[in-house]
Amino acid sequence: MRTHYCGHVTAADLDQMVTLCGWVHRRRDHGGVIFVDLRDREGLVQVVCDPDRPEMFATAESVRNEFVLKITGKVRRRPAGTENTSLTSGEIEVLCHQIEVLNPSVTPPFQLDDENLSETTRLSHRVIDLRRPHMQRNLMLRYKVSMAFRRFLDANGFVDVETPMLTKSTPEGARDYLVPSRVHPGQFFALPQSPQLFKQLLMVAGFDRYYQITKCFRDEDLRADRQPEFTQVDIETSFMGEDAIMQLMESLIRTVFAEALEVQLPDPFPRMPYAEAMARFGSDKPDLRVTLEFTELTDVMRDVAFKVFSGPATSGGRVAGLLIPGGGELSRGEIDEYTKFVGIYGAKGLAWIKFNDVAKGRDGMQSPIVKNLSDEALAAIVERSGAKDGDLMFFGADSAKVVNDALGALRVKIGHEKGHMNGADWMPVWVTDFPMFEYDEDDKRWTACHHPFTSPKDEHVDLLESDPGKCLAKAYDIALNGWEIGGGSVRIHRADVQEKVFRALNIDAEEAQLKFGFLLDALKYGAPPHGGLAFGLDRVVTLMTGADSIRDVIAFPKTQRAQCLLTDAPGEVDDNQLRDLHIRLRKKVETAVEVEKD
Amino acid sequence: MRTHYCGHVTAADLDQMVTLCGWVHRRRDHGGVIFVDLRDREGLVQVVCDPDRPEMFATAESVRNEFVLKITGKVRRRPAGTENTSLTSGEIEVLCHQIEVLNPSVTPPFQLDDENLSETTRLSHRVIDLRRPHMQRNLMLRYKVSMAFRRFLDANGFVDVETPMLTKSTPEGARDYLVPSRVHPGQFFALPQSPQLFKQLLMVAGFDRYYQITKCFRDEDLRADRQPEFTQVDIETSFMGEDAIMQLMESLIRTVFAEALEVQLPDPFPRMPYAEAMARFGSDKPDLRVTLEFTELTDVMRDVAFKVFSGPATSGGRVAGLLIPGGGELSRGEIDEYTKFVGIYGAKGLAWIKFNDVAKGRDGMQSPIVKNLSDEALAAIVERSGAKDGDLMFFGADSAKVVNDALGALRVKIGHEKGHMNGADWMPVWVTDFPMFEYDEDDKRWTACHHPFTSPKDEHVDLLESDPGKCLAKAYDIALNGWEIGGGSVRIHRADVQEKVFRALNIDAEEAQLKFGFLLDALKYGAPPHGGLAFGLDRVVTLMTGADSIRDVIAFPKTQRAQCLLTDAPGEVDDNQLRDLHIRLRKKVETAVEVEKD
Repeated sequence: MRTHYCGHVTAADLDQMVTLCGWVHRRRDHGGVIFVDLRDREGLVQVVCDPDRPEMFATAESVRNEFVLKITGKVRRRPAGTENTSLTSGEIEVLCHQIEVLNPSVTPPFQLDDENLSETTRLSHRVIDLRRPHMQRNLMLRYKVSMAFRRFLDANGFVDVETPMLTKSTPEGARDYLVPSRVHPGQFFALPQSPQLFKQLLMVAGFDRYYQITKCFRDEDLRADRQPEFTQVDIETSFMGEDAIMQLMESLIRTVFAEALEVQLPDPFPRMPYAEAMARFGSDKPDLRVTLEFTELTDVMRDVAFKVFSGPATSGGRVAGLLIPGGGELSRGEIDEYTKFVGIYGAKGLAWIKFNDVAKGRDGMQSPIVKNLSDEALAAIVERSGAKDGDLMFFGADSAKVVNDALGALRVKIGHEKGHMNGADWMPVWVTDFPMFEYDEDDKRWTACHHPFTSPKDEHVDLLESDPGKCLAKAYDIALNGWEIGGGSVRIHRADVQEKVFRALNIDAEEAQLKFGFLLDALKYGAPPHGGLAFGLDRVVTLMTGADSIRDVIAFPKTQRAQCLLTDAPGEVDDNQLRDLHIRLRKKVETAVEVEKD
Repeated sequence: MRTHYCGHVTAADLDQMVTLCGWVHRRRDHGGVIFVDLRDREGLVQVVCDPDRPEMFATAESVRNEFVLKITGKVRRRPAGTENTSLTSGEIEVLCHQIEVLNPSVTPPFQLDDENLSETTRLSHRVIDLRRPHMQRNLMLRYKVSMAFRRFLDANGFVDVETPMLTKSTPEGARDYLVPSRVHPGQFFALPQSPQLFKQLLMVAGFDRYYQITKCFRDEDLRADRQPEFTQVDIETSFMGEDAIMQLMESLIRTVFAEALEVQLPDPFPRMPYAEAMARFGSDKPDLRVTLEFTELTDVMRDVAFKVFSGPATSGGRVAGLLIPGGGELSRGEIDEYTKFVGIYGAKGLAWIKFNDVAKGRDGMQSPIVKNLSDEALAAIVERSGAKDGDLMFFGADSAKVVNDALGALRVKIGHEKGHMNGADWMPVWVTDFPMFEYDEDDKRWTACHHPFTSPKDEHVDLLESDPGKCLAKAYDIALNGWEIGGGSVRIHRADVQEKVFRALNIDAEEAQLKFGFLLDALKYGAPPHGGLAFGLDRVVTLMTGADSIRDVIAFPKTQRAQCLLTDAPGEVDDNQLRDLHIRLRKKVETAVEVEKD
């Protein structure tokens, strides 16, 4: 139907007849002539409709925004001074000979260039929203990224194997989406939270190198970077250790950034043990562009009179400072705002000291809390942080989790707002040496930090029984600019080690067999050493585009209430459908649907 | 961990030290030496363990089938006469210096080369089953095929856009898999039967060319070529007509066969209107390798005395013959078997005539039914079919559907069994010009043959109201060797035509708005002319591998009872999970789960 994409017509086509199809982006009447900006996926071109072709001109007069046209015309140079350098086609225009309205359009609910739309409006009219050039760019980039992943993995011998969507509910982890079975009354499939077990089974089956770009599902409350269904670049390999996997994976992500974004990421990526990341940044996905760091103070706060510090310091909590160079300039209002901000993360307050004159010691410090701190503590603060005149330190003192979350978030916020940045656009970092377990204070038991199939470090296998809290895992995450974009581990390939881990997790043999029997069976039949990683595709693309939300890189996302405003899903279904599935609604919700009699 | 894949070591590596990882495929002791066939994804290599390295030899003595080994050794030429030409590595062997057992294995449930396993055994131990070389080959070929699809589509400007898995139930079509919503009590998502509506929305949104290799779901009773979840190569394009789409798609499938299988399919594919396919072969996916054809006899059987023929011929049914050249040789037992076979398709019998001496007319024919047929009818049989001495004709007389199904299946069966084949390995054919509607005798209404978004032929739009049964669609299927491997259509892009189709289908405006409102809305805002096609990936790969069932080209398939024997899905879930989802089991099935009290 067409000879060119609108966005591809250039001065190279001068004096050629072209046929174009696209949407009316804008129509202007100027000096008796009609100018139509015709738009397609590749861009805009200006079409000029002269009144000297009356039939064509009459049609041109009838067109409105978003009409679909097919036009034929001759490419000519725009008059000098009217070129548009922001368009590929900006040097030329098409003098229209013929015009056909392929489809009219009613007036769209909003202008495509309206930047002040609510997300509800955008998602309700997603089809129009997706016509907006930045949404087109986002989804085209997403495709470029996924193809870059595929090409690298393909070239490195990885094989895409599809794993099931209708699988078994596993009570570990997040909440499953369930699918009632019609054939097996009272039974349910679950949608996969990840293909974790299947990819391990594929390694045991000898596929050696596996990948899949696949949907995963978690029925959790949503945040800006979460969707009920999300896309994972899922990767697993046999016969490679931790270090080799990390090298290959960072080479992959470097290639993806180079191909899709023409960005060179560092080679190699820096690596940082989990313990160091938490100590210095309070986060296992530190934004290394931010130059601010924590100052560890727990040890020197044990004996101070200030109970807000000594309490956490003597009861397993953490006390840390965050030095803000030049922070003495912060206004009372700003400090109040930061205090409110850390409250979101559970911090009950935000103590601070301004260093007016470090040489004067206690007397050079301005703060409500200085009087309750010992000379030793104050000296340690200055010495460890390198505080200088004009700086300010914020303090966190609480459980380690609250201090890390609150001060870690404050670090990023102030870093970005006040420009404590190292100037790099992209700062990836491997975070390694994660603990195997964390202690659940509520349930009084150890839980897996990663998942129960993660291998302990070889030299820590004995700690599984003697001191699980000290046991480190062969696990690694990639953080980029403060976002976790991928994570993985070397898996346990020997049944005896897997059993020890289950014992540490207080999962008895019967429970283990019930939940993971098929994996445990597979481990007995010659499982190779294997490990892998999964990238969050939505997050990677969101980072690349600079979008505010992953919803801007997904064609048809759900709202934070897990709804699709376009199709109005979820929705009610016929009672017959429920009957076929051997389920009924609980009474409380049986309002719109006839109460069932059986 | 390794320098080579086992299957890649060749004479080019002579005298090199290599390190290999893999599974013990076979171990033989011969003349005091241990031979281990070590296997990985790429093939086998023979490893020779000499007793002159005692530590290594002791380990070698301990290994059993399916142990995972890492071996280091020197590549040497096999002694003359012991080469194995069926292996890439067959000229060489590796003299083992070091051996490490990476993981032992218990005795596998079956030998990998056992060809007599039940499907239940294979699916229950799928991980071991997947180690079998033909399963490895099938899944590797599947990957090659899907990458060939992607490469062609990418090179032709198609963009992979992910569409939702959690979407809305549409009461049209097959039964949906439903997913209860936790956030919206009493509401349900549905898993997509295809991304049909979303891909049309993407065209309206201006993405121009879309593809996706994606899972689709139908909760239907299963057959050999059906799975609850199946994979579709889903394609849609804007601004292309029927003919251009078909040309591009056949070029795609030709490229896929050439790249993945090194097979050259015909260029161009033959095309055949639906009416012709049904008339000649009783099938809209005819196996054109089979040379047998139907003889149309309905018109000449209206007045015959034989009620079995005249009944259907005068009441809207069909009477057709299937001439089997040389079929006079068929035994009574064979004819009985075929009679039983057509019974599967609803035929109540299988009349036949043997042509002993065509020149003698009625007297040269042997059959119980000849006496009840008129001379005109017998003459038409011979003339239309070109029957010769020694041939046999089978007859079908029933509703057109039964005749087509029964005689169509018989055609394929006899064609393959008796060698009435044209010698081609691959016979693709486009079947075109499908009717828009078929009449549902039970519901006394027209239903869509394809789906309600299929465009009628331009010149048939008026028939939508005046004579729906005569209205043909811009729909096309690709059949290959008797399998439908893909199908598609040009879609309706104008709201007024879509409304006419809904009227013909007796779907009123309110119902249409309720079910497809978001598509109808989209059509109002400037929908481009568009159309597409979807290939069934499972079927394409099954055909390519010659597998008996699509289950042999799926890593983790479900049984015909929609179960996964490996993970034992579906399964029971906690009542708490159901409570979260606002559903409970119907009483009949509330056996294993506590009866709910609210």
